[in-house]
Amino acid sequence: MTSLDDLPIRDDLRGHVPYGAPQAPVRYQLNVNENTHPVPQEVVDDVLVDLATALQGVNRYPDREFTELREGLAGYLGKGIAAEQIWAANGSNEVLQHVLQAFGGPGRSVLGFPPTYSMHSMIATGTGSTWITGERDADYAITPATATREIERLDPDVVFLCAPNNPTGTPLPIETIEAAYEASRGIVLVDEAYAEFARPGTRSALDLLPGRPRLLVSRTMSKAFAFAGVRLGYLAADPAVIDALRLVRLPYHLSALTQAAATAALRHAPVMLATVGDIAAQRDRIVAELPSLGYRPYASDSNFVFFGGVDDPHAVFEALFAKDILIRDVGIPGHLRVTAGTAEETDYFLRSLAEISPR
Amino acid sequence: MTSLDDLPIRDDLRGHVPYGAPQAPVRYQLNVNENTHPVPQEVVDDVLVDLATALQGVNRYPDREFTELREGLAGYLGKGIAAEQIWAANGSNEVLQHVLQAFGGPGRSVLGFPPTYSMHSMIATGTGSTWITGERDADYAITPATATREIERLDPDVVFLCAPNNPTGTPLPIETIEAAYEASRGIVLVDEAYAEFARPGTRSALDLLPGRPRLLVSRTMSKAFAFAGVRLGYLAADPAVIDALRLVRLPYHLSALTQAAATAALRHAPVMLATVGDIAAQRDRIVAELPSLGYRPYASDSNFVFFGGVDDPHAVFEALFAKDILIRDVGIPGHLRVTAGTAEETDYFLRSLAEISPR
Repeated sequence: MTSLDDLPIRDDLRGHVPYGAPQAPVRYQLNVNENTHPVPQEVVDDVLVDLATALQGVNRYPDREFTELREGLAGYLGKGIAAEQIWAANGSNEVLQHVLQAFGGPGRSVLGFPPTYSMHSMIATGTGSTWITGERDADYAITPATATREIERLDPDVVFLCAPNNPTGTPLPIETIEAAYEASRGIVLVDEAYAEFARPGTRSALDLLPGRPRLLVSRTMSKAFAFAGVRLGYLAADPAVIDALRLVRLPYHLSALTQAAATAALRHAPVMLATVGDIAAQRDRIVAELPSLGYRPYASDSNFVFFGGVDDPHAVFEALFAKDILIRDVGIPGHLRVTAGTAEETDYFLRSLAEISPR
Repeated sequence: MTSLDDLPIRDDLRGHVPYGAPQAPVRYQLNVNENTHPVPQEVVDDVLVDLATALQGVNRYPDREFTELREGLAGYLGKGIAAEQIWAANGSNEVLQHVLQAFGGPGRSVLGFPPTYSMHSMIATGTGSTWITGERDADYAITPATATREIERLDPDVVFLCAPNNPTGTPLPIETIEAAYEASRGIVLVDEAYAEFARPGTRSALDLLPGRPRLLVSRTMSKAFAFAGVRLGYLAADPAVIDALRLVRLPYHLSALTQAAATAALRHAPVMLATVGDIAAQRDRIVAELPSLGYRPYASDSNFVFFGGVDDPHAVFEALFAKDILIRDVGIPGHLRVTAGTAEETDYFLRSLAEISPR
């Protein structure tokens, strides 16, 4: 039998293993920060009407410019953002890949601040970019001064910031984004995958777009919109950035079904987002209750909670798995991460964790 | 206003323009080799049932391994091909991108035989691979001896063959594929996007897979299956090749909607493919009738016809466009390409061409 090693695979891929969050059929899947609330039936019904229309013409290639979807996304973001400032792709991972194909790649560096979203470094290396890392402050924060210092020290071609951060949930002050932009000569991408879950008063990097053509703000419909299965990530930036991304995308990269489903869902944004407040409340409840179980949760602006004080993360992970709960061991010693879901899921998670915890 | 040139775009992209077959709202769209027959309503209805089911769980990420779809594709291909030999992505362009991310890339060369599918060279350069070109024989054919000679001369890491070729429609003998495999040390990819339209007796490179772990055969549902809008390309190869592609794909690259729609359509393969015979008949009719209009059509195993003897391709293109017909000027002097569609489309195309042709 032929093995991977027998094939002329690229040398830099030898010994690698694929990205692999477990996809196990457990009852409580709290490991990949999905929105655990299904899409409301009234939205499903309306999406199906538009999918039926799309299928009538599906023998043809889709609109390469996904015009209607871009208009829908611009309208959803508001803040005066125009459709010509919008890009979208099959998940924000593909959006970031397009960004690095245009602005990163061989001979260029991408700066990230670990621990951060694991796909950032994988997309950097996958596009031939050099992944370099800056230091965070205590408790995973990044002050404006720290961002400036690390960017001046490392002089990256592209800066990736995660607001809030994943896997730690840490808020990123808008002043840090401003400072990073000022300090850098290249692209500054702010990954706002979880932006809709931010606590009241949090400002989005979208507010900084005017006058900053090197600033890119990515979002996704996977989280707050409960649309992970549809794979729709997007970004907002100067129209010239969108022109650059057109050069590297594969033609017709967004299917007619993706365009139709996402456009229809955006028409129902208030209904789709109705669960955000409930989820944020469960997140806050997890943060409030974990200390009484002996753990140390971090502040979170996302739909998940990162917590320390775990003597044996692997043992806790396994003990919860035995109780039909999947959470995430992100590989940081003494820490675990759990998704905030429904009230019932949170009840069960906290009760189960109490049962297996020393106090 | 910021322009593309003001941004820190990669130097190798400066001055490029995006891929851009015109998407104009004309009545007769015969330019991008779509299947001009809509998907039969009975299939649309069944696909919608599966899409409705998929939407119920679309708050979750899709099956990263697209297990059911791979089984459906393996069953469709037959010939003893197993699901573990199948890969799929958002269009065969993305399949080829995955192949070059794993086996091509910086420092590696990809050999093509122009004129050929324009995306092959774009995907090669987009992945940082070096695109190198071999010579064809007369009338765009490639004999086994020519393939062997060019591969020995150029020593590529990856060979791209197009069977039949696009834009010329030229058949590729299976003996040429065997010879190319024997002569090469690297990956040999055979792009069979139009395989279902091949004339009776044509053998597929799929027959060569056993015992050839470096051979990859790509297909698409865009053409014969009339599913261009769904964006589903795939390939068959040794299971070790599939392992390699898993290393470079972005996680969850195939949406739940894409998986559901394609899987449902594959259950209706005989109905979906019912138009193939009609289209091939129209193709043969175009090939038979063009000489009487003074043109020189090439033999075609696809759903399009490439023809020479055009004194002024741009003028013919424009004259047809004025009559609400879009065909393709592929940039080869003296030649044009037209998609074979319905009988009515073929009638109108041939009548219109006769009206504007010198004899």
